[in-house]
Amino acid sequence: MDQLAKAVGERIRHRRKARGLSQDNLALLSGIDRSYVGRIERGEVNITVEKLYLIARVLACEPATLLPEIQDIFK
Amino acid sequence: MDQLAKAVGERIRHRRKARGLSQDNLALLSGIDRSYVGRIERGEVNITVEKLYLIARVLACEPATLLPEIQDIFK
Repeated sequence: MDQLAKAVGERIRHRRKARGLSQDNLALLSGIDRSYVGRIERGEVNITVEKLYLIARVLACEPATLLPEIQDIFK
Repeated sequence: MDQLAKAVGERIRHRRKARGLSQDNLALLSGIDRSYVGRIERGEVNITVEKLYLIARVLACEPATLLPEIQDIFK
């Protein structure tokens, strides 16, 4: 399931950059620890649904858009 | 954010019943502890994205369909 964490991290990073935010901005605005944001984007942690929502709120998107399709995870 | 856990739990329960599965079936097939499945459905725990995928695979749906819209959570 590392693949899942990596896929979610990449989507968060992509969306963050598209919004012109730094990791510091995302950490500050979401209330998530700055180094943890880095670990999330590198796919090193399996985040909770709650953190997914906190991040999605800052990135102004639906949490679902930060999730890869299930067929890409369970091949 | 209890509201989020409750909303996700309700969607999982609804989908599980629509698939004609018991909590025992879902627990067995997803590899998640039986009592934890009950707590998830009652909205008592904040599950990880990984568990969301394990559950969605058993329920034959996209994980995104088990997530409420962000506007329903952050009013």
